[in-house]
Amino acid sequence: MPGEFAFIDSLRARVRSNDGVVRGIGDDAAIVRFAPGEECVVTTDTLVAGVHFPLDAAPADIGYKTAAVNLSDLAAMGATPRFCTFALTLPSLDGGYVEPLIKGLLALLDTHQVALVGGDTTRGPMSLTLTAIGSLPAGTALGRDGARAGDVVYVSGTLGDAAAALALRGQRGDSLDGERKLARTRLQQRLARPTPRVALGQALRGIAHACIDVSDGLAADLGHICRASGLAAVLDSVALPASRALLTLVDDPGQRLALQLGGDDYELCFSIAPENEEQLAAIAAATHTALTRIGTLGPGEGVHFLDADGRIMSAPAAGYEHFR
Amino acid sequence: MPGEFAFIDSLRARVRSNDGVVRGIGDDAAIVRFAPGEECVVTTDTLVAGVHFPLDAAPADIGYKTAAVNLSDLAAMGATPRFCTFALTLPSLDGGYVEPLIKGLLALLDTHQVALVGGDTTRGPMSLTLTAIGSLPAGTALGRDGARAGDVVYVSGTLGDAAAALALRGQRGDSLDGERKLARTRLQQRLARPTPRVALGQALRGIAHACIDVSDGLAADLGHICRASGLAAVLDSVALPASRALLTLVDDPGQRLALQLGGDDYELCFSIAPENEEQLAAIAAATHTALTRIGTLGPGEGVHFLDADGRIMSAPAAGYEHFR
Repeated sequence: MPGEFAFIDSLRARVRSNDGVVRGIGDDAAIVRFAPGEECVVTTDTLVAGVHFPLDAAPADIGYKTAAVNLSDLAAMGATPRFCTFALTLPSLDGGYVEPLIKGLLALLDTHQVALVGGDTTRGPMSLTLTAIGSLPAGTALGRDGARAGDVVYVSGTLGDAAAALALRGQRGDSLDGERKLARTRLQQRLARPTPRVALGQALRGIAHACIDVSDGLAADLGHICRASGLAAVLDSVALPASRALLTLVDDPGQRLALQLGGDDYELCFSIAPENEEQLAAIAAATHTALTRIGTLGPGEGVHFLDADGRIMSAPAAGYEHFR
Repeated sequence: MPGEFAFIDSLRARVRSNDGVVRGIGDDAAIVRFAPGEECVVTTDTLVAGVHFPLDAAPADIGYKTAAVNLSDLAAMGATPRFCTFALTLPSLDGGYVEPLIKGLLALLDTHQVALVGGDTTRGPMSLTLTAIGSLPAGTALGRDGARAGDVVYVSGTLGDAAAALALRGQRGDSLDGERKLARTRLQQRLARPTPRVALGQALRGIAHACIDVSDGLAADLGHICRASGLAAVLDSVALPASRALLTLVDDPGQRLALQLGGDDYELCFSIAPENEEQLAAIAAATHTALTRIGTLGPGEGVHFLDADGRIMSAPAAGYEHFR
């Protein structure tokens, strides 16, 4: 079993740098540089075994997801991810476990040219904390508080896959036919390896009035935009995008809606002025991202849903809050 | 028991901002800004219960120390601490525990005008990860690799108090006289609330060739400078500074030396050219920090110690490495 310093040395040899790194792994702290007028966007997310991923999750998926949830936060701000630090706590640095974990982490960081510039390794109950730093031109960040009455609300990709994968986890798949087995695998992949919408987030700078990533659940997350912007959202429940895999496996519309509000999808939910919808269609095409109009913002408060007949529904099940 | 969002709201109301904060707690990520030509220095440290602090440690001390060890890393780079993010994992957000913990954390952050700009709260086995970001003029950071042959080695403050406090932890203090009781309390304070040498680190920019903070132990930490700079260190074991409290409680010089090499002191160890010693004396006076010359750097490798008669000693006990 390697020691802490050997682990750090092997990590240092494998991480990619980028042109903003003045000094990476190996000193008391890292040094990163931005161009004048560039802002530095910082986010931190911890993943704990048994809370954010099942105890038997593949280590490569855990590493990947740790990067994904942080890059998703930067995407929700419209930032270009640049650097990160990684704090890894584990009972032991056993190579058979750590090796694929780091591989999964670096796979996504490398895809986005994010330089791992430092961190900490500690012995203890497993937990992973990544701090990601992104940049953007001063004043262009997408916040939660910029939404305006009359805005239309969009969401990227599809909703509900991650929650469905969680719900299906306990069930045996032996009796499923080929199509359903494939659909279940697809849902599990979406839960294990969510795609942070990095290119979309950057493309939304200057067009989205407010933006958030869907981690706790659509109602909870869009609720943050409503609260910060002093508005109410009215969403069309039947417009919420669902994947083919979800449609294949979950027939009941009520059950499907509950899953679509379950969170952990890491899609972006944002609002724009209706006159910019054409421009948004071009962004969807350029970033190869499906974007679906799901509702509108107006005076009032809270997130409300309309059923298939356009009648307001009583509040569907909410998202996830730690420490309830 | 408050929920996650209530906890974040209460925290947001209490943290101090500074003029570099564009957006603090409350969005997907924080935004911080530096003046043109300023570099951003990033560090992350995790504290785990039972490893970095005893399970029965006072929560206020735990919070304080989490800030201290990170600010110490920034100090070792010569950076001015500016911002931080805080990832807190706890079995529950019980106010009786979290309240003093946050108080202890903010106490030190406020002292140094460091703005807490974001973070994450998670349910799980207790662990605290702080990521601190500092700034300094481009090109002025103190690294581990800049030491030169002929440099003299200095250390701030005193060494061994933290290790002595740990060693004395198991022993009952009932039989101690007043002076020794006081000395023991002083050692415990040094372990629980180390002082990051923030002002000293900044003052050493432009004069120290290499700098590190003493966390793992003097031999291990100075060893990093030697390795990175391609040099050997020869230290005078009787010159290592000891506090009055340590001298009061530990009579045996061999035992004292082992404690002085034990780590967790968060003093700065650095090298300068001998012709700059006068300038260094002025820095010691200006920053109210005791600085002690403890040895020299020359060709070779490793950290070596001379005994009271100037004879080279066999290697004394080393510092701390996780995962051994």
